[in-house]
Amino acid sequence: MTTDLQAIIEEIHATLSPRTGEGKAADYIPELANVDPKKFGIAVIDLEGRVSKVGDCDEPFSIQSISKVFTLTLALGKHGETTWNRVGREPSGSAFNSIVQLEHENGKPRNPFINAGAIAISDLVMSGHTPREAIGEIVRFVQYLADDAGIAIDPAVARSETATGFRNFALANFMKSFGKLTHPVDHVLGVYFHQCALAMSCVQLARAGLFLAANGKNPLSGHTVVSSQRARRINALMLTCGHYDGSGDFAYHVGLPGKSGVGGGILAVAPGRASVAVWSPGLNANGNSLIGSIALEMLAAKTGWSIFGAPHA
Amino acid sequence: MTTDLQAIIEEIHATLSPRTGEGKAADYIPELANVDPKKFGIAVIDLEGRVSKVGDCDEPFSIQSISKVFTLTLALGKHGETTWNRVGREPSGSAFNSIVQLEHENGKPRNPFINAGAIAISDLVMSGHTPREAIGEIVRFVQYLADDAGIAIDPAVARSETATGFRNFALANFMKSFGKLTHPVDHVLGVYFHQCALAMSCVQLARAGLFLAANGKNPLSGHTVVSSQRARRINALMLTCGHYDGSGDFAYHVGLPGKSGVGGGILAVAPGRASVAVWSPGLNANGNSLIGSIALEMLAAKTGWSIFGAPHA
Amino acid sequence: MTTDLQAIIEEIHATLSPRTGEGKAADYIPELANVDPKKFGIAVIDLEGRVSKVGDCDEPFSIQSISKVFTLTLALGKHGETTWNRVGREPSGSAFNSIVQLEHENGKPRNPFINAGAIAISDLVMSGHTPREAIGEIVRFVQYLADDAGIAIDPAVARSETATGFRNFALANFMKSFGKLTHPVDHVLGVYFHQCALAMSCVQLARAGLFLAANGKNPLSGHTVVSSQRARRINALMLTCGHYDGSGDFAYHVGLPGKSGVGGGILAVAPGRASVAVWSPGLNANGNSLIGSIALEMLAAKTGWSIFGAPHA
Amino acid sequence: MTTDLQAIIEEIHATLSPRTGEGKAADYIPELANVDPKKFGIAVIDLEGRVSKVGDCDEPFSIQSISKVFTLTLALGKHGETTWNRVGREPSGSAFNSIVQLEHENGKPRNPFINAGAIAISDLVMSGHTPREAIGEIVRFVQYLADDAGIAIDPAVARSETATGFRNFALANFMKSFGKLTHPVDHVLGVYFHQCALAMSCVQLARAGLFLAANGKNPLSGHTVVSSQRARRINALMLTCGHYDGSGDFAYHVGLPGKSGVGGGILAVAPGRASVAVWSPGLNANGNSLIGSIALEMLAAKTGWSIFGAPHA
Repeated sequence: MTTDLQAIIEEIHATLSPRTGEGKAADYIPELANVDPKKFGIAVIDLEGRVSKVGDCDEPFSIQSISKVFTLTLALGKHGETTWNRVGREPSGSAFNSIVQLEHENGKPRNPFINAGAIAISDLVMSGHTPREAIGEIVRFVQYLADDAGIAIDPAVARSETATGFRNFALANFMKSFGKLTHPVDHVLGVYFHQCALAMSCVQLARAGLFLAANGKNPLSGHTVVSSQRARRINALMLTCGHYDGSGDFAYHVGLPGKSGVGGGILAVAPGRASVAVWSPGLNANGNSLIGSIALEMLAAKTGWSIFGAPHA
Repeated sequence: MTTDLQAIIEEIHATLSPRTGEGKAADYIPELANVDPKKFGIAVIDLEGRVSKVGDCDEPFSIQSISKVFTLTLALGKHGETTWNRVGREPSGSAFNSIVQLEHENGKPRNPFINAGAIAISDLVMSGHTPREAIGEIVRFVQYLADDAGIAIDPAVARSETATGFRNFALANFMKSFGKLTHPVDHVLGVYFHQCALAMSCVQLARAGLFLAANGKNPLSGHTVVSSQRARRINALMLTCGHYDGSGDFAYHVGLPGKSGVGGGILAVAPGRASVAVWSPGLNANGNSLIGSIALEMLAAKTGWSIFGAPHA
Repeated sequence: MTTDLQAIIEEIHATLSPRTGEGKAADYIPELANVDPKKFGIAVIDLEGRVSKVGDCDEPFSIQSISKVFTLTLALGKHGETTWNRVGREPSGSAFNSIVQLEHENGKPRNPFINAGAIAISDLVMSGHTPREAIGEIVRFVQYLADDAGIAIDPAVARSETATGFRNFALANFMKSFGKLTHPVDHVLGVYFHQCALAMSCVQLARAGLFLAANGKNPLSGHTVVSSQRARRINALMLTCGHYDGSGDFAYHVGLPGKSGVGGGILAVAPGRASVAVWSPGLNANGNSLIGSIALEMLAAKTGWSIFGAPHA
Repeated sequence: MTTDLQAIIEEIHATLSPRTGEGKAADYIPELANVDPKKFGIAVIDLEGRVSKVGDCDEPFSIQSISKVFTLTLALGKHGETTWNRVGREPSGSAFNSIVQLEHENGKPRNPFINAGAIAISDLVMSGHTPREAIGEIVRFVQYLADDAGIAIDPAVARSETATGFRNFALANFMKSFGKLTHPVDHVLGVYFHQCALAMSCVQLARAGLFLAANGKNPLSGHTVVSSQRARRINALMLTCGHYDGSGDFAYHVGLPGKSGVGGGILAVAPGRASVAVWSPGLNANGNSLIGSIALEMLAAKTGWSIFGAPHA
């Protein structure tokens, strides 16, 4: 199967490589604007730990919102189901940084994957710790998930996010005005901007997400990260809310739980099969990697991994 | 496995029967208000066609919005992917009968399962036919899906819906004002109100939905209804949009594509496994069957059918 | 002063005549689309009854939403302050035909001058009467206000409005779904579409509005229409809500209570001074007469009639 | 007339004094929460400069949003009509601190009297100056308007506003994210919070607003503050937007341009007649002084000063 998978992703990579550069890469901070828009990598790790990979799959990039999956997992570990007192579990029906919904629903974000929700989750992850401590814990947790002590935050990205993140300051202050954040706004955003600045390669990302494909236990490291029920539930959230206002479209075309980041990465989970990470900086209208989404659609079609179909006979 | 399934749903039925009557049954028309709130039935049909059933599983009830799955399938058959020029594929982030989104998005409904979207689908299904012809076609299509010529519309329900459906008249006229309906408003709503008035039992419903669990082909009748790709895509839409503003919650707790109706029915699809229908009139705050949702959560937990987990070893 | 006023409006007419045709005339029904866009009339009647007039000031045109002032007056006469249980008194902050606000505020329109509010007022005016009776009463009331039995409804306009008024059908059905209309939707809209189809000339309009400039009593006919308090209050509503989402702008530039219609007419009231009507079909972005608004701004500047300034010494 | 006015406001004061304490005083900062809710003052200054006053009319209170009238005047003096590139002139149709409208209209506030609009005006007033310089200029301008060098900012109020003003931080950051603020958010809000912390008595306030009643020229000091056209236009804005989502109601009941503050003060302008200030801390549902509004309604009724009526014969 490794052979097959390797062939499949090589074919996808070859087919789509000419189209890299399509879409529009994020340019709101220089660190993202300066990334080569032709970068394109894919990594797939199956439940036996076999790695298939192609292209720029070992080059770290800014995972941005993909980090929200990891901090949600961390928050659920600390706070269990009470986490849902702070954020909802419903698709937002609006853009990733919309503030309208917050006003209509008294400052409670719709789900943990829109910006407001992820900021609320950062507040939960802090739990009385300093920003430095919380950031350290997040980095160590992601290192643990990927079993790779080399994963780190890009401080230049964190600085740029802080300097330009007015919309996130608006969201956080808005929630604070409803009493929905425990810690000071600057502290919470400090944590949030740093988690978004995590730099990881496709291979590292796929490894970090593997527990979600394997009922909560990382088959490589042997770590039981979460219960199988929790793994299913996180996957469900990724499916319904992982791509902002393009979540329905991603489910329709790809049919796998996934989470995108504005840096052009996508982490996708094929339960019982594999963890997949793709990277291509050009974004579509919903802010998700254009080529990355197509690559995942092709992969799901060729493997029959869609969670919405009966397995191939 | 039939034995096991039969035992499982009997246990679920026994556990939840004391709670029937919880929630609030729809009472906006007398035909729904007068239904015994203690009714409770479950039917499961696996891919080999084995039927497990319990309780009021053979008594027809008003399927209401569950019909939207069948008319969407019909519209896709007639219009293919151009269907999506008329309705979107994203969760709405608002109530089933909200008109706000329509105004913000120029009269194009977010998905085919909110009322506005289903009305647009009814318009597509008509395709130049009279309301009577279109209604006839829908009934025959559902009879074909369930392989049961006894399925019929309850005319009293259709009449009551027509007499009290001001909100649906508002939605249809609103879309018409944006040029989004081809046929006269009264005709389109005539079709819509009649499809919602289809009366089916849990067994009939489960049979009608079986093609979605089996890559588009009904294993009982041998009919190939849709391609496997289309079956997956309809399932994806049910997962992301099938329960209005409770879709995220249903995915989180149950983990199966499903579509609810205000009559208390839910059709759920376990791809590669089975088609399931439940019926219990009391509704939760999002307008979905309260006991029915819990029954499906229990069933998914006991069978491991959640599409978000790796299959049980 | 008559001499002066006559000279003033002649100068305004001469200045602006070359610009008639600017803006965009309503074209949603043929009866409005076919009106000569170069039409331009002004009529001013002072409290002594002296008439100054120029241009197409004696040609009847479709007064459309200006009728809302007269039906509000009628409803207040029948129902007094309980009228405000049915509609609010606040500017809407949105377009004349928006339905969003209705959903957020449970079907109660923000004010009597947006379409939804005027439909609610039509419902109040009916008070158990048939549409025919209510329409007759409205016509007679306007004839009484203008002291002119020749004022009539244009039946072709009423028919066209009915055939194309999907947005108004949406608004009315939406309110009906909230229980906010007493009579059948079709009846209420029958009244509404007919009141909007009233045809009046600038001179007739100015005469019909004269009671509002004169503390409630028409100085020409001697009829006391409303109390001075009610006249002030209707003027206040015209000032804050009379031009949809351009009301603030009209107050800023003209400084007089006014009510516009999509036919290109505007009725303006200078309390203690005069009643003014202008007509020019081209509309600005907010749906108010473009040249008519400018003409009124010039008139207010030349006469010092703005209610926001101290009178000229 | 002074005698009459004095008698009128004494009667109003006597009638309403038993009701002071009704409504709900602002309590979001201790400096407002600790104000005696029974405070009640009225001051009226006519165009000849005669002062009528009663109750707590000489005690300074926090003018809060009333300051927006003065900073708007200052901004218009610096930037003229280009001010309107930054804020609109329409009623908002929503609460004073709503952020929804900002998102729908790309960060441009609807008018200068909602919080977002006033923050944009503070940004304009800065014009490259430091916060300290801008605050100094505002204080001097208000001292100049009132011809009273004793007017000052309450630093404790400014500190508390800064410490708790999360909603305003949200609004400012939100506008900043749309590129609608020139200066750093913290600087702009520094100015904004200080202007809101101005402490003035009813007599001082009435004097500072007198130029608006007198075509732009303060008849006491002889200062020509603005042109008569600009005075009319500021009055128009106060009428349509001065009381948040209660502006229509205030126009309906009082019929005078006015601006309220959450400290319980209201400045009202009777063009050609007088400037009026009232103070009573208890607020109504729209955040405007409850007793103050009623006092002004009584005053307008007794004097016939409503701008919507013909003057008393």
